[in-house]
Amino acid sequence: MRPRLGHIQFLNCLPLYYGLVKNDVLLDVDLVQAAPKDLTRMLLDGKLDIAPIPAIEYARNAKDLVLLPDIAISSEGEVQSILLLSKVPVDELDGARVALTDTSRTSQVLARVLLQNHWEVTPEYVEMPPDLPAMLRDADAALLIGDEALRAYWEHDENLHAYDLGDVWTQWTGLPMVYAVWAVRRDYAENEAGALSSVAHALSGSLAYCRANLDDIAEYAARWESFPVGHFRSYFDALQFRFEPRYREGLARYLSEAHNIEQLETIPRIEIAEVST
Amino acid sequence: MRPRLGHIQFLNCLPLYYGLVKNDVLLDVDLVQAAPKDLTRMLLDGKLDIAPIPAIEYARNAKDLVLLPDIAISSEGEVQSILLLSKVPVDELDGARVALTDTSRTSQVLARVLLQNHWEVTPEYVEMPPDLPAMLRDADAALLIGDEALRAYWEHDENLHAYDLGDVWTQWTGLPMVYAVWAVRRDYAENEAGALSSVAHALSGSLAYCRANLDDIAEYAARWESFPVGHFRSYFDALQFRFEPRYREGLARYLSEAHNIEQLETIPRIEIAEVST
Repeated sequence: MRPRLGHIQFLNCLPLYYGLVKNDVLLDVDLVQAAPKDLTRMLLDGKLDIAPIPAIEYARNAKDLVLLPDIAISSEGEVQSILLLSKVPVDELDGARVALTDTSRTSQVLARVLLQNHWEVTPEYVEMPPDLPAMLRDADAALLIGDEALRAYWEHDENLHAYDLGDVWTQWTGLPMVYAVWAVRRDYAENEAGALSSVAHALSGSLAYCRANLDDIAEYAARWESFPVGHFRSYFDALQFRFEPRYREGLARYLSEAHNIEQLETIPRIEIAEVST
Repeated sequence: MRPRLGHIQFLNCLPLYYGLVKNDVLLDVDLVQAAPKDLTRMLLDGKLDIAPIPAIEYARNAKDLVLLPDIAISSEGEVQSILLLSKVPVDELDGARVALTDTSRTSQVLARVLLQNHWEVTPEYVEMPPDLPAMLRDADAALLIGDEALRAYWEHDENLHAYDLGDVWTQWTGLPMVYAVWAVRRDYAENEAGALSSVAHALSGSLAYCRANLDDIAEYAARWESFPVGHFRSYFDALQFRFEPRYREGLARYLSEAHNIEQLETIPRIEIAEVST
């Protein structure tokens, strides 16, 4: 059976998908598209072998999982697609209501970390579907992620204060931020080391392809969305798929901050799968 | 939104998939894999725009559907993957029990047509999951299709009489047999003529690629199955994706035979979508 690889059908994973198609990887892996929140469950239940999952969900299930060494959804500085939109400057949000999109896991915790530990305000949180007008009817600020955040990043009401949480994180910590990691079930990593290495190499090859062809990918993305090519080019530049040691340090710092505000019970050791070269 | 194209994850559609990947078509269509029996419902419900569906199900829903002009799953003579295995010569099956795999629609009717109108026997039919030993415990003959049929075609008990129903059909009628057609919802064909033409050309291009690279595809198939490359090469040679007028004539004859044995209420006119060149 071909390795079953999860895939997120969001703009952030579009460059990777483009590389997978161009490198014919879909002949060697069975690519299964699902919403990010479903991928963790499918991976733990053995319906997938390898999948991109939210960083915080990896940490909560780390005893069953190891990580691919050379790929993550990450940014150093601005990310554009994780956005806090606020009616007032963010340091005035003490006691106010903040609406968190229910499509996010890692970014909900990132917003709480930055509000509480960096900006030192203590709002009340409410989880809602990602509908900005509805969120701002009910709350003073709203966290959006993914495609909705990008649209707001590119075109939002100028009366709103907009905070790119990737940017704020790096300004504060001096470290990159890791939003999602490619996780493998521990038993699969042990029993199917060859298949795992093949998938890891295929993903790295696809990333290399995508880095070398960002203009084409931005043009491709623009065909299906109503924003200009330049917007996509800028987004794909911001979005990194890097996971080298400094990024892992950023992940460790994030997990420690999440633990500090009681959003993560224990801080796991980050374990990387062995992949033959 | 990209056109949503259904796909069958069986060996018979593997050459087409190979061509779709090699020609980067998966950047332009959203390929949705499902079991053949589910594709018709998804297409009629508007969850897919274009899909390969069983020929008999097309006929039963023809008022809502039109067909792509240049692609079908079809054969002229042997098909290898639609097999009647019988304990006795087939003309001795009068009054006997024939188990029909419950994974098939078109082939169930094809088996009935050949038994009743060609071999002129009237067995009793029972529908069962495709498990040959279980079928032959309960019945005197068994219809298998797809991957299970292929395995039986390549390695079956020599005491069983094996009939390739594609071969029998062409010997009897002098015509090709069409097992599945690529159907489009009529409203999609009318409103999205440009997208439909793109998909039609992408499929034709993929077929051209696959016809020119059958050796590579047979090798690729053999990597995931326990049969030698030569078996796959022979199967992919037998399996045609042709749907030119003589094949449509084969389809019309099949539908008329199905109507004759009361498996199809009315014989529809076969309507082909207009595709710009």
